[in-house]
Amino acid sequence: MAGRQAVKAYLDLVSQACRAMLIFLKHNKIPHTVENIAIRKGQHKTPAFTKLNPMQKLPVLEDNGFVLTESDAILKYLATAYNVPDHWYPKLPEKRARVDEYTAWNHTNTHINTSSIFLHEVLLPCMGQPTNPENFEKVLADLDGTLDKLENMFLKNQPFLCGDDISLADLLAVCELMQPLCSGRDILKDRPKLLSWRNRVQSALSDSFDEAHSVVYQIREKFTAKLSPC
Amino acid sequence: MAGRQAVKAYLDLVSQACRAMLIFLKHNKIPHTVENIAIRKGQHKTPAFTKLNPMQKLPVLEDNGFVLTESDAILKYLATAYNVPDHWYPKLPEKRARVDEYTAWNHTNTHINTSSIFLHEVLLPCMGQPTNPENFEKVLADLDGTLDKLENMFLKNQPFLCGDDISLADLLAVCELMQPLCSGRDILKDRPKLLSWRNRVQSALSDSFDEAHSVVYQIREKFTAKLSPC
Repeated sequence: MAGRQAVKAYLDLVSQACRAMLIFLKHNKIPHTVENIAIRKGQHKTPAFTKLNPMQKLPVLEDNGFVLTESDAILKYLATAYNVPDHWYPKLPEKRARVDEYTAWNHTNTHINTSSIFLHEVLLPCMGQPTNPENFEKVLADLDGTLDKLENMFLKNQPFLCGDDISLADLLAVCELMQPLCSGRDILKDRPKLLSWRNRVQSALSDSFDEAHSVVYQIREKFTAKLSPC
Repeated sequence: MAGRQAVKAYLDLVSQACRAMLIFLKHNKIPHTVENIAIRKGQHKTPAFTKLNPMQKLPVLEDNGFVLTESDAILKYLATAYNVPDHWYPKLPEKRARVDEYTAWNHTNTHINTSSIFLHEVLLPCMGQPTNPENFEKVLADLDGTLDKLENMFLKNQPFLCGDDISLADLLAVCELMQPLCSGRDILKDRPKLLSWRNRVQSALSDSFDEAHSVVYQIREKFTAKLSPC
């Protein structure tokens, strides 16, 4: 790694995927600097940021001139290029495929469900836009189906989503499932199996977990104190 | 590979991801057998199939007892376990990351857009359900944005989406973009740059492309002859 500059991470920690990236960098002691891009201030739409990522999305990784978007691609790249412990993204094809299976599924299930809750309970009210209670019922029902699948099809009787040790799948999933906490909603509270899993993930990640989630805790405090979280 | 049984592929070729899997198996001469699971007949919901994949989704791969879902995980597993030419899923971290970046983006962009067109123009009419013209306008506008990004952010001035040679990204993308052809809609007809790309992909895949898409061509024929495609 001699002569390599520290990785640059463009992040807004209100985003689940950005928290996952920061936790991964910190936990694995990958030298990095953070550029904070505040989405609520429109900083992801400035000409400078648009030049870096024309998609105007976060997170973005810059590694010695190599610019990469999409959190699961970023995490897999970091795991490979920075040679982190194998359990994060195992080299054995069958084990790796389990992580790829979850990260593919995550996009159109866990991510969509938890983002929709955040949209209905935090973003729309902040933008002064009406929410539709019928749509929100549907969001909660979809989330319930996703949590069932997380429990019964991924976790089953394993300690972590893809086996005996923590992987990128757990990291991405836990950050998604923390998102509704912004509006004071602990979606795992009646799910003892997933709660134990979250505790295991949280202790495996130690301090980096709470550091990355401090923004979530701040928004929750404002929300539960009935102050504007905007 | 001595002693290995042929891979089993559970497919319905009406699905974009199933076609991508079949093309990959055929083109790379990976020994396989196909189990046809007709979604329109509900064969993905039988007890036997549900036992194999509790998600009741296609495609599914079975490789000597190892069962895997999610098309992009399946393709990456096959590329690794069956040692296909490197260009499909390059080992170099920067090049691999480009393929992972597209396959991640595909889920919530190309896939959602082309599936929505198929839903509005084929599935809903087949189920006797009304379609909403306003929603459909939105679907077409979203697709337009996706095609712009495919052209300007992925393809740019390269022959293929992730560089000089065909990769899993092109294979997944081309199968998605063929889906609206079922209702006679060639979404690339006014996009010369993407049309040339599709021609390059199609010739790189040779016969396996048309074989896998024969179901699409059949549905289109019925649709344009104003016969029921259901």
